[in-house]
Amino acid sequence: MPDTRSPRTVLKRERVRTYLLALVEDRRPGDAIPSERTLSAELGVSRPTLRAAVDELVATGQLVREHGRGMFVAPAKITQELVSDRHPASAPMATGAWSSRVLEFSTVSAGARIGRRLKVSPADDLVYVARLRLVDGTPIALEYLHIPAALVPGLTAEQMEAGFYTHLREARGVRTAQAVQSIEPTVLSEDEAVLLGVPVLSPALLFDRVTSDTGGRPVEYVRSLYRGDRYRIVSRLALGTSTDDRPAPDASRTAAWWGTVE
Amino acid sequence: MPDTRSPRTVLKRERVRTYLLALVEDRRPGDAIPSERTLSAELGVSRPTLRAAVDELVATGQLVREHGRGMFVAPAKITQELVSDRHPASAPMATGAWSSRVLEFSTVSAGARIGRRLKVSPADDLVYVARLRLVDGTPIALEYLHIPAALVPGLTAEQMEAGFYTHLREARGVRTAQAVQSIEPTVLSEDEAVLLGVPVLSPALLFDRVTSDTGGRPVEYVRSLYRGDRYRIVSRLALGTSTDDRPAPDASRTAAWWGTVE
Repeated sequence: MPDTRSPRTVLKRERVRTYLLALVEDRRPGDAIPSERTLSAELGVSRPTLRAAVDELVATGQLVREHGRGMFVAPAKITQELVSDRHPASAPMATGAWSSRVLEFSTVSAGARIGRRLKVSPADDLVYVARLRLVDGTPIALEYLHIPAALVPGLTAEQMEAGFYTHLREARGVRTAQAVQSIEPTVLSEDEAVLLGVPVLSPALLFDRVTSDTGGRPVEYVRSLYRGDRYRIVSRLALGTSTDDRPAPDASRTAAWWGTVE
Repeated sequence: MPDTRSPRTVLKRERVRTYLLALVEDRRPGDAIPSERTLSAELGVSRPTLRAAVDELVATGQLVREHGRGMFVAPAKITQELVSDRHPASAPMATGAWSSRVLEFSTVSAGARIGRRLKVSPADDLVYVARLRLVDGTPIALEYLHIPAALVPGLTAEQMEAGFYTHLREARGVRTAQAVQSIEPTVLSEDEAVLLGVPVLSPALLFDRVTSDTGGRPVEYVRSLYRGDRYRIVSRLALGTSTDDRPAPDASRTAAWWGTVE
């Protein structure tokens, strides 16, 4: 369809999106918004164009469609602040009451790939834990943890549900010092979607993280899938000039700091 | 299908994923990997289970399927480091040669929502720019920028393509100081997918950012869509104890620092 290939269609879509986001911002979670028919008339765009924009806002958790009842502003997202190491006090806890449900708890061999991550032999034992993370009882994430077995002899599923990091610190004397984490977007497979209670192929954030202790020893390798409709990350990026006397960084570096470049 | 609802299926999926990721890590971009038939036999899983895992790695840019030729390791992703304000020198430039193509360049009224973001009147003029970002000539992101018109009188599309942040600093004397950015996963609509050269509904990262200058004045509001198969974010999170004498933060806060909580 040549028409959809024209930038103009994308720009029209972005305008519709902007208009819908304004409707959402001016309302409260649960408030109704006008019907697709009303909106497409108001905006002078085709129903398919409007529906595509609504579909996106539903998939990304700004709007909720209720069959036969209409469209409503979605619940506020759980916002996780990704903070710098400079202002620890500014790190808020993720909103809501979090809990965990262990889906699997077993001992496995590290293998070459995860062994490299955790700096252990491929033959070393790891405690492998798959757990569902819930916020106020709603499934929000799937976590797959790999922990060197030597670090946590006798670890139980109950301890993983009660609070792994507290356990590491208080029962094992492990002081976590840093984490290197990659973040990518993905879509949920059918089985993951079922566990998380969302439609198959819903957008999700894939975290891949290695956490190390104060001695630089890796203590966990974790892959997590977070529901995109309920979870977002906010980062505050200082560009240097505001915090000290360094000259303004060059454009490319400045840009790199906020996730884009010249 | 009750079976896909069992955690075990998810865990089997994760094992297949781990196995495939190991194959990818042990090879170079462009190298072939065994066929789905061979792999499902090796792993003792059904073709659908294997295919679903492969589909995910194709969608997230670890594998490439070439019809009739087989499966290959995908090109390395563009890695953007999200750095703290403490170690500016550690901010690398995103890899590859970046360029921009302006799709639309116009003047619009701010409106209530974007006006709030930019701290201007809803009636104020904004320069609205939609641009395609390319890396080594390959489309990687779509960017929708809103800039207070009063800040950049006479701004041209050519200047946007040559380098907006350099222009801001050198021609307008604007020193960008900080940005607040939210990151969410989404899927690409058909027209966006066509512009970015990927299948419709491919995963993407949605950035929503307001950048301010040294005086705290917002200078841009940007929404960007980055291809999930070619782009990822890496963050290094220090948990405090490694960098100074503060006691280890409590588990919930520590956890909040790396995108999960107890």
